[in-house]
Amino acid sequence: MTSKVFFDVAGSLDGFVAPEGMDLTHADDPEFKQWLSQWTKLQSWVFKQKFFRENLKLGEGGETGYDNHLLEETFRRTGVSIMGKRMFDGGERFWPEEAPFHTPVFVLTHQVRKPWVRPGGTTFYFVNDGIESAIARAREAAGSRDIRIAGGANVIQQYLNAGYIEEFTIHYSPVFFGEGVPLFSGMNRNIEVRVKEAVPSKEVTHISYEVTFHRTDSP
Amino acid sequence: MTSKVFFDVAGSLDGFVAPEGMDLTHADDPEFKQWLSQWTKLQSWVFKQKFFRENLKLGEGGETGYDNHLLEETFRRTGVSIMGKRMFDGGERFWPEEAPFHTPVFVLTHQVRKPWVRPGGTTFYFVNDGIESAIARAREAAGSRDIRIAGGANVIQQYLNAGYIEEFTIHYSPVFFGEGVPLFSGMNRNIEVRVKEAVPSKEVTHISYEVTFHRTDSP
Repeated sequence: MTSKVFFDVAGSLDGFVAPEGMDLTHADDPEFKQWLSQWTKLQSWVFKQKFFRENLKLGEGGETGYDNHLLEETFRRTGVSIMGKRMFDGGERFWPEEAPFHTPVFVLTHQVRKPWVRPGGTTFYFVNDGIESAIARAREAAGSRDIRIAGGANVIQQYLNAGYIEEFTIHYSPVFFGEGVPLFSGMNRNIEVRVKEAVPSKEVTHISYEVTFHRTDSP
Repeated sequence: MTSKVFFDVAGSLDGFVAPEGMDLTHADDPEFKQWLSQWTKLQSWVFKQKFFRENLKLGEGGETGYDNHLLEETFRRTGVSIMGKRMFDGGERFWPEEAPFHTPVFVLTHQVRKPWVRPGGTTFYFVNDGIESAIARAREAAGSRDIRIAGGANVIQQYLNAGYIEEFTIHYSPVFFGEGVPLFSGMNRNIEVRVKEAVPSKEVTHISYEVTFHRTDSP
């Protein structure tokens, strides 16, 4: 049993994973560029799912169809997450005390900091020596489960371009952001992928890809 | 019977409809940025289809499955195409004498030029007074069939942002370009769309959208 390395994100039709204006500086100003309503459009399907609602303790009920199944499966397969510092900073502010990972999480950062243990099984480890070191530590911690590159986009690009990503899923929301944080930017065009599955659900289209070839020499 | 306005394009995973280096200047230099092999990756599924091969007189045979059906349906519904000058310039050079439209085609350009009649029913009309004028003329010419905004990306963006597009289809090829001509750039985020259908085929994923709302005041 070897851990697979994957990512799983929601993207706008024009390829953004976050709208313009969504950053810590404007965390208290959701009217700024309407970042909160834009982000909500991207994520609205997630907030309706029973599994997500339970995991974030948002309340009872929720949908139990394919979208819910997908979120639950992604959670269950994940033995470790890796994320960038900006994503962590946002989450440190907005996640509930019981952070929604319930696994080790490795945070790529220059900041030296002791592991941060949260109730419910999430422990954040701060990695100061790069993406390869984080993967090596993640492999040890993941057991037979998979390693999720949680984000943000820049961290996903680094792992994809360096040839670590084996599978990924994009949930395409039918919305345009115009500007924001692009999921894919400056991609290594030697990466070849294959569609594993494309499933349209009520609001979004889920497409899963498998990376089939990655030439390590740059284009 | 009212004509619908739509577009239908192939896009890379990172959102490009043409690779870097694919322009008239480098038409004779396919090694430049490997533009031809990149473009072929985007379009390879099309060249295998029976309908496309017959329409471009590329030879006998070809696939006859869903991909072929889709190409044929798109052709049949199209009563008129509208395109930009750069797309026309490329096509003028590379289309066969019997251009593959077999309908009136309106070319947005500053150039004043008499209609260019091709064998097989394609006539190119050169429109010098903007996208609205082209649509008005296209509606007259289309009869009960639909109006295809053929491209390039900039022309598609203009029609989408101005609220003319009612439906569109993107054929996502699982390939990264890194750089090139983005399909969506600077989109009006008031445009709301809904997924009509998402169909994974052997090589690409076809997603059709319906535009459900477009507020004409800018964001």
